[in-house]
Amino acid sequence: MAGSSIGTIFKLSTFGESHGPAIGGIIEGVPANVLLNVDEVQYELDRRKPGQSAIVTQRKESDSIQLLSGVFEGKTTGAPIGFVIKNEDQKSKDYNHIKNSYRPSHADFTYDKKYGNRDYRGGGRSSARETASWVVAGAIAKQVLNNLGIDIVAYVDQVGGVKLIGEIDYNEIDNNPVRCPNVAVAREMETLIKEIKKSGDTVGGSVKCEINHLPPGLGEPVFNKLHAELGRAMLSINAVKGFEYGSGFDAIEMRGSEHNDIFNPDGSTQTNHSGGIQGGISNGMPVTMRIAFKPVATILKEQDSINDKGDLIKLAGKGRHDPCVVPRAVPVVEAMAAITVLDFYLRNKSTQL
Amino acid sequence: MAGSSIGTIFKLSTFGESHGPAIGGIIEGVPANVLLNVDEVQYELDRRKPGQSAIVTQRKESDSIQLLSGVFEGKTTGAPIGFVIKNEDQKSKDYNHIKNSYRPSHADFTYDKKYGNRDYRGGGRSSARETASWVVAGAIAKQVLNNLGIDIVAYVDQVGGVKLIGEIDYNEIDNNPVRCPNVAVAREMETLIKEIKKSGDTVGGSVKCEINHLPPGLGEPVFNKLHAELGRAMLSINAVKGFEYGSGFDAIEMRGSEHNDIFNPDGSTQTNHSGGIQGGISNGMPVTMRIAFKPVATILKEQDSINDKGDLIKLAGKGRHDPCVVPRAVPVVEAMAAITVLDFYLRNKSTQL
Amino acid sequence: MAGSSIGTIFKLSTFGESHGPAIGGIIEGVPANVLLNVDEVQYELDRRKPGQSAIVTQRKESDSIQLLSGVFEGKTTGAPIGFVIKNEDQKSKDYNHIKNSYRPSHADFTYDKKYGNRDYRGGGRSSARETASWVVAGAIAKQVLNNLGIDIVAYVDQVGGVKLIGEIDYNEIDNNPVRCPNVAVAREMETLIKEIKKSGDTVGGSVKCEINHLPPGLGEPVFNKLHAELGRAMLSINAVKGFEYGSGFDAIEMRGSEHNDIFNPDGSTQTNHSGGIQGGISNGMPVTMRIAFKPVATILKEQDSINDKGDLIKLAGKGRHDPCVVPRAVPVVEAMAAITVLDFYLRNKSTQL
Amino acid sequence: MAGSSIGTIFKLSTFGESHGPAIGGIIEGVPANVLLNVDEVQYELDRRKPGQSAIVTQRKESDSIQLLSGVFEGKTTGAPIGFVIKNEDQKSKDYNHIKNSYRPSHADFTYDKKYGNRDYRGGGRSSARETASWVVAGAIAKQVLNNLGIDIVAYVDQVGGVKLIGEIDYNEIDNNPVRCPNVAVAREMETLIKEIKKSGDTVGGSVKCEINHLPPGLGEPVFNKLHAELGRAMLSINAVKGFEYGSGFDAIEMRGSEHNDIFNPDGSTQTNHSGGIQGGISNGMPVTMRIAFKPVATILKEQDSINDKGDLIKLAGKGRHDPCVVPRAVPVVEAMAAITVLDFYLRNKSTQL
Repeated sequence: MAGSSIGTIFKLSTFGESHGPAIGGIIEGVPANVLLNVDEVQYELDRRKPGQSAIVTQRKESDSIQLLSGVFEGKTTGAPIGFVIKNEDQKSKDYNHIKNSYRPSHADFTYDKKYGNRDYRGGGRSSARETASWVVAGAIAKQVLNNLGIDIVAYVDQVGGVKLIGEIDYNEIDNNPVRCPNVAVAREMETLIKEIKKSGDTVGGSVKCEINHLPPGLGEPVFNKLHAELGRAMLSINAVKGFEYGSGFDAIEMRGSEHNDIFNPDGSTQTNHSGGIQGGISNGMPVTMRIAFKPVATILKEQDSINDKGDLIKLAGKGRHDPCVVPRAVPVVEAMAAITVLDFYLRNKSTQL
Repeated sequence: MAGSSIGTIFKLSTFGESHGPAIGGIIEGVPANVLLNVDEVQYELDRRKPGQSAIVTQRKESDSIQLLSGVFEGKTTGAPIGFVIKNEDQKSKDYNHIKNSYRPSHADFTYDKKYGNRDYRGGGRSSARETASWVVAGAIAKQVLNNLGIDIVAYVDQVGGVKLIGEIDYNEIDNNPVRCPNVAVAREMETLIKEIKKSGDTVGGSVKCEINHLPPGLGEPVFNKLHAELGRAMLSINAVKGFEYGSGFDAIEMRGSEHNDIFNPDGSTQTNHSGGIQGGISNGMPVTMRIAFKPVATILKEQDSINDKGDLIKLAGKGRHDPCVVPRAVPVVEAMAAITVLDFYLRNKSTQL
Repeated sequence: MAGSSIGTIFKLSTFGESHGPAIGGIIEGVPANVLLNVDEVQYELDRRKPGQSAIVTQRKESDSIQLLSGVFEGKTTGAPIGFVIKNEDQKSKDYNHIKNSYRPSHADFTYDKKYGNRDYRGGGRSSARETASWVVAGAIAKQVLNNLGIDIVAYVDQVGGVKLIGEIDYNEIDNNPVRCPNVAVAREMETLIKEIKKSGDTVGGSVKCEINHLPPGLGEPVFNKLHAELGRAMLSINAVKGFEYGSGFDAIEMRGSEHNDIFNPDGSTQTNHSGGIQGGISNGMPVTMRIAFKPVATILKEQDSINDKGDLIKLAGKGRHDPCVVPRAVPVVEAMAAITVLDFYLRNKSTQL
Repeated sequence: MAGSSIGTIFKLSTFGESHGPAIGGIIEGVPANVLLNVDEVQYELDRRKPGQSAIVTQRKESDSIQLLSGVFEGKTTGAPIGFVIKNEDQKSKDYNHIKNSYRPSHADFTYDKKYGNRDYRGGGRSSARETASWVVAGAIAKQVLNNLGIDIVAYVDQVGGVKLIGEIDYNEIDNNPVRCPNVAVAREMETLIKEIKKSGDTVGGSVKCEINHLPPGLGEPVFNKLHAELGRAMLSINAVKGFEYGSGFDAIEMRGSEHNDIFNPDGSTQTNHSGGIQGGISNGMPVTMRIAFKPVATILKEQDSINDKGDLIKLAGKGRHDPCVVPRAVPVVEAMAAITVLDFYLRNKSTQL
């Protein structure tokens, strides 16, 4: 109800603010007897963490995962996995200057209106620090999915006006700080982000995600369609403004005769405008989607704004923020895909006796 | 769990296939003592129903709403509202030719894989007939929202390559069969749809939706953000391939300094790239979104396909289908917006004591 | 949220008041491809319906089930099963005398306080007529469970001071109007009920229920224990005042050394004080429980009461009511047990990969 | 789904095993801006903790609450409250002797069957240590309820054959180790428990609970009746075998004319057989209930049992266990009542606009 949970059988519930003692969560519905590699969980957290390269925020957080339950002698027990990640670099004084100010396009104003109070130290629950907990659940989901032969990959396909063109080499994704699967384009994107950063500004971007080897039959009809739940999951990520799957917005200008995916005798299709999903249910083809991110709202340039009395004020970001969110969003997108897909896999087990 | 419900407090659960005796549903959480105008519910159903103009399917369905509970002496009682809509034009023999065939880009293949059976008479639960029940719940939600001063409007803003440009006159929306708020553009779209229809093909389109006078504070942080739930609701509509709100996919190429919405002293903003939502919570500005629809999969042109044994076959649509889905999708989009927003309004009542 | 649903995967949602056009519901999560015998569903409804014997209410309701969806060519499809039961004998004028009165120990007062309105025609949602919809879902659940070798039986074990003693012959349960598995005791109970009825009064009773051949492992730890959900289900039945399982309230006076169920080598136990459940999870022994029903609140004797202005008034029941609720409660108890157990069976399918 | 949560708006989700590093949970739906007294939370934990008197287990656990989120500058923010309680006295070697053994009437056998594994160190999730997390949520709920004028009190009313008779002095409850509100009876109960303990055995008991000053209108009809959810909550407590409210099992032998609660002009009733609830909804009278606890399964006397290969073995409890669970169950019962009632209070806020 209060918005802190995602999933039905495989389910993550989270708590925590960026400037409290810790963030964390509870993961329910992890199938019993799965060998769990905690190092792989930490590896995913490291892909998301601040300070990993020159083009991301320079905050210092080790983001060390601490598992508190649900794993015994190296294996999941079927009990909920509780975990915490301590907040280490909570320079709360960085935020004193905005104690009574509403930052433009942040959640300061809306949280204040909703709750009648505001944790002004870094946005409270609206901070993207929250996504670290999602990465933990996603990393665990990925391990279960990998056991089932399902894999998930995401990458940056646009930063500002720079689009991914040319060859895609999945092995390059984690070899460059942008997480773009084409070395030349990655360099171009990196250059753009550095320029933007120098100018005290920020820029948008987009991330593509593919889910491969998903068996047909996952997703529920009507209100829990596979793509609708993936959309909701992705739209939950901070700064996301749009979601499309398969042909997406390009479908608007297409004809049915060109959009329809003609079957091969084995049930696969010659094209994949459906993005691996028909009627909300996976068809065995790769699930493909694209997620649009806005430019980060915190900029170092001075801006007009108001305080909580409605007085006009001037504001400039003082913290250490990302000039472009997509490089660090890649593991978050993968995590949300993994959480969603594993849940549907488990839900599907009761469709037939 | 099984995907037949949407909402938490205000909640719709549905049942029914297009070729069974009836479709229908249960609406829970309607606040007590609301004067309910059943004619307005029927009016919304009529906006969605087949046969309303020359550019939509010519199936004959009166789509008469029958309320079975929850209303007493003209007012809601707080009890669940049960309703049915009889299926009248169930020409099931229209579907005998596809009994063992998988139509391209339909849900035939995926339902068969998921359930081990298939209601081949019109797609079963995957039929867009289902959306009639959504319109019932949406029409009831709209009445409650109107009492609160909140209104919702949707319209077609693109059909194939024809985009809505020029002036917008909301009063024109229901004056033309396309439901486009500009007379000249509407005529162009209508012409295109007729050509497409004549050629035995179908075409995509998009719908815009605005929610006005929403109070600030609606939406829940983290996993039930207002825009994420709106996205999920819209992505549930048959044929939808993409969702964006506010600046949407255009945000990818924007700078933070240009994207940020600067506040006016009264808390409104000078621009509305946020689409009325910051941190997942409404800020009092209009909520704006755009939904992309693919071309309808059923085309009259012959196509290659397979049957359930994997044999290659030829198929051509024989039923009476929509050449373009967006005109009839407009009331469905409004319904999904109303259902989602009323639920958040009711959820928000327990945020503070 | 609004209280109209039970279950998670196998889930019943209901609507309807006793004096509206119909009651009904939606059953989600019925596994696909189960051969469904509609006559057996009707048989269970007939066991619950009014007018079946001289010791129950003489209202006339045929209680005919009408299935609207989810079944195709005799088998479940996996889609939700919508159904309605028409209300036929709605003598609403029977209730005009209580339009402004609060009947003692009915829900008139509490519904009025909660909703600010009241459907005075027979109690609205608080009417036990609602349980007919539960019997439909229960009858469908029973068929699925029977396929799995699980069976459920309930019977009356006390009416007023008359307790079930002596031999139990399950075959006798439906051979007498009380549904007591001992012919002699049944006759005694029947005599008591007839006396009570003649005196214009009502009397309480209790029902026992056994679930046999349940595999070990059903139930979820902590907050969804098997017995806790069975308790909630039984306490939902109109007029129920108490629930116990296994040793129940007798356990208060027992010692651990006498209460503990000692294992046999095959994992069964020598005694069954646990009532087939340990730590909230089935252990393979019969699940046993007992449910206490109060005397029906509607009596023909005149009583003091108040109206909605707080004036003292005199009231006497005029309708056709049950002198004792337990004979008709037996199929309802079985239904609630079946709904609960099938849900846990399906939930358990995702515990391990 | 996986059984780790209770509540809908006010909702507790828990994790943790008695022998892992910590137990804890997330509390969602705490209304914003409530002044929170953490000492009172700790006080309730101290009422539940081991070692508090000679008649309870002598395990050493400080049970210190650590809040991790959701409270800022002394007040609740509306964000979820995450918390942990470290496990300190985890003498896991105490359990090595039962590594492969199934203790009679424990959850060892059923967990093993369900999950295919077993955390043999103290029962894993089935340990009553879990209830400490419930007490945290209950203590927070109590503070919110007290602000609303609602109060909850529980006490022991039977231990073995010793029943509470004579005067009730609520002030005495926490003045004696049994938590019985009559000094003389308390002494008798204490003597019995000490004898039982000395003999290496355990004994059952019962707890009564009253909720006072609850406004009318709380509870939801049909499947979320106030008493049904209270029943589920109480039946979730370890060792509980039965639940009754108001007249409870005594109602079986009563007549309607004697059971009906006659109204006073102000809407209160002359008797309270209804236990403050009619039709599942509070009527403003005190809510009364009684909960039956079995004797603790761990006894120091030697018992027959089996191991996981089905071999017959001998077992005797070696740990430090409670001879009677009810004294420490009192704060747990109060916590479950508070959690349930606050949730219904918040749910009721959306019943009318």
